[in-house]
This record gives sequence, structure tokens and C-alpha cells, in this order.
Amino acid sequence: MWRATVLTLFPEMFPGPLGASLAGKAREKGLWSLEALDIRAHATDRHRTVDDTPAGGGPGMVMKPDVLARAIDAAGADDRARLLMSPRGAPLTQARVQALARGPGMVVVCGRFEGVDERAIAARGLEEVSIGDFVLSGGEIAALALVDACVRLLPGVMGHDASGTEESFAEGLLEYPQYTRPQVFEGRPIPEILLSGDHGRIAAWRRAEAERLTAARRPDLWAAYLARRQAAKFAPDG
Amino acid sequence: MWRATVLTLFPEMFPGPLGASLAGKAREKGLWSLEALDIRAHATDRHRTVDDTPAGGGPGMVMKPDVLARAIDAAGADDRARLLMSPRGAPLTQARVQALARGPGMVVVCGRFEGVDERAIAARGLEEVSIGDFVLSGGEIAALALVDACVRLLPGVMGHDASGTEESFAEGLLEYPQYTRPQVFEGRPIPEILLSGDHGRIAAWRRAEAERLTAARRPDLWAAYLARRQAAKFAPDG
Repeated sequence: MWRATVLTLFPEMFPGPLGASLAGKAREKGLWSLEALDIRAHATDRHRTVDDTPAGGGPGMVMKPDVLARAIDAAGADDRARLLMSPRGAPLTQARVQALARGPGMVVVCGRFEGVDERAIAARGLEEVSIGDFVLSGGEIAALALVDACVRLLPGVMGHDASGTEESFAEGLLEYPQYTRPQVFEGRPIPEILLSGDHGRIAAWRRAEAERLTAARRPDLWAAYLARRQAAKFAPDG
Repeated sequence: MWRATVLTLFPEMFPGPLGASLAGKAREKGLWSLEALDIRAHATDRHRTVDDTPAGGGPGMVMKPDVLARAIDAAGADDRARLLMSPRGAPLTQARVQALARGPGMVVVCGRFEGVDERAIAARGLEEVSIGDFVLSGGEIAALALVDACVRLLPGVMGHDASGTEESFAEGLLEYPQYTRPQVFEGRPIPEILLSGDHGRIAAWRRAEAERLTAARRPDLWAAYLARRQAAKFAPDG
């Protein structure tokens, strides 16, 4: 079974939203497991201190390396990925999510966002992962996002109903616009072509819309998409 | 007071993690408010239908425009920003978070990630925002991230203790490595310079480390940083 172990100062935040909906039902069915361990349980002094002032000065507090290392060790020495949610990390991608979902699970450390002692990161080989260029009050909500993204890909969780969004990301494009009933909403009709029944033309329209949206909204994804398309054209088996 | 209204099919997911820690305490103090409204309450048929199959075919279900528009209208016609959490949206940045935190609050729609009828997005002027290039089972955890990021910036929530992470992002750099006691951890000492008491040299070392990390891990941020530095050099008042 795919196992997520979360190390946090706020174990009461878990399972939280992962206890409902898709992830919650899958957990009840035994398709995955979640445990939230309290980092503070590994503090050794009377005050259960988990952080201290930064060496060299500066604002905020830094998570102590010794306490965090003990918490990681207590999570079990197995072959799961060890991640630290951190705005300094590599941006999380759907490709990384897919790889993590194929593996045995993960140990996820929720740091204070002000910082975690660098030596604990190095000594325990934590992979720093970021969910975006914004600052949260802690790593917990980022961990919830990462676990949710992985769990929906586990066998049996979604069935065979792969989402269009996911297909789009696999191709490096944003998803085309979607429509459903009613046929006219506040004077706005569904684009005629979608009601034509002509699957070839519908697919071509959707692809053109996905390309148009990607070029307009995400020049970064668009440039990468064009580069891949160009490379494919000149590939030996192309 | 700064107000967040979340429209969702899973109101039980809120406040969730926002009920604890920094955001929870600030909410108890009346520094901000959160309400989660059930989109399903605005369905009108006997089965309380909120979604339907995509026009033109394809996997997944699409959120109906009429039901969603009624839910948005019920949230109140005020001057708050109206956002839709969606992987097709503009990537969330700390600058956007700061602007939202300075405003009166926000109405956040949690869509199914398979899709929301495009006409509801256009008719209600929803700003699509993405927390990253990965797919979640719904917009709820993304909404939690957005609200958390805003709330920590509200007056009185963090006091004057701005985090180093935030200062770094404002400059377009990743944060420098942090260290705290003990002075030696598993044979690894704190870098000597941080214990020198020489604030000028410490600041220079931290800046060099932040630049080194950014160049190594985030070529995108690094290129933007260099471009800004170059532009500043040639600015009329530079």
C-alpha cells in the first residue's frame, strides 16, 4: 500500500481535506495510508523546543537540525522519497507527482517557512519541493496539495476516467475550454462545433484552443511546447 | 475586516488547516473571516445536479454554468476579487498575494479540475489562478493555500516579524541557507562566518548564497533577476 508520512508541528491539520472526497474514500478503501507525526515529540528539553534563532541574526526562527533529524529517523528507514516542502525547492510538476505515485509512498517534512537548518536537509537527503512562488505560514497546506496530487493517480482511485486536464499537462498545454448544458446560458450559446458530432473537427478545435490559451497565458509552457515539437520533427524516427 | 468566501462542493473541508496555527488564531481574534458556501445548495433539480457531461464528448464532468453563477451571485455583489482555482490560470505569485491581502478580501471558487463551463467564468469575470503545474482532485486545497498566503500578510497577524523567505521573494531570489544551534550537528559545523558577528560580511555571504542557489535551482528566476539588475543600472536615477 502507498504510504504517506507527514512530519509536522501541527498534526491536527491532517488528514483535513484529505479525509473527504476522492482521497478520503480511497483511504477508507485501504488504497493508501496517511500518518501525521508530531515533530515536537522529538524535542528533548523541558520546554519541547523545536526552533531557535538564526545563526548570524535575522528575522524568524529556524527549525533545529537535531530535533528534525530524530523525527525523520523515527518515520522509518525505508526506500520512500523524503521531501521537504519549501519555497526554495524545485517547482512541483505533474511528472514528479506521477513518479512519486508510482513509488512506495513518501515522507513529507513540513518546515517552518522561515527556515529549516540546512544541515538537517543535507544529512537526511531531503528533496526540497515548492508548490509555487508565494509564501505560506508553513509547509502543511503544501503537503496536503502534494499528497492529494499523488493519491488521485494511485491505481483504483479514479478508475479509468483520466481527466482532460491531466492529458493536457502531459502534452504541455493548458486545457481547452469546457461547456455543458444548458445549450444557452445567459444568452451565451455552446460553440456550434461542439454540438456537430464531428469528432475530427471537435478534436482539431480543442487542440487549437488549447494552443491559443497556452500561448496567451503561459509563454513559458508555450516555448517549451514549440521546442519539443521542433525536436520531434527532426528526430531520427520522426 | 478582510473576508474570504469559498464556493465549494466540499464545505466540510473548511476551515480545515486554516482553523489552527497562525491563521486560526488570527480568525479567533477577528482579524479575518471565512465562510464556505455549498455550490450544491444552488442546484434546482431533484437530484441536486451540479455537473454534466462535456459538450463535444471527452472524459470527466463539467460544472454547470447556471448553478455556479447562482452560487457566485449568492456570495454577494461586492468589490472583492473573484477567483477560480484552476490549473489553466495565471501562476500565483507573492505580488498577487500581497495585492489581494491589501484589498477587502476575495470570493474563491473551487472548481472540479476536469472543468468549469467557460461561460460561467466569462459571465462572472472570474480570475483564473493556478498554484502550480500539477493536477489536484479539486480546487479546495489550492484555495486553502491562497487564503493562508493572504492571511499571514494581514495587519496584526504576524506582527513586525517579516520572514526572510518573504524578503528573498521580494528581491526575486531564493532564501539563503539557515542554521541554528547546536553549533555542531552530526559533525557538521555552522559556517564560521555566521558566528563572526561581522554583520557586513554575513549579509554579503547570505546574498552570495541566495544568488548561487537561485542560479542553480531556478534559472527562470535568475534570468529575471539579472534583467532587473541590468535595467536598474541604466535607469535615469540609477
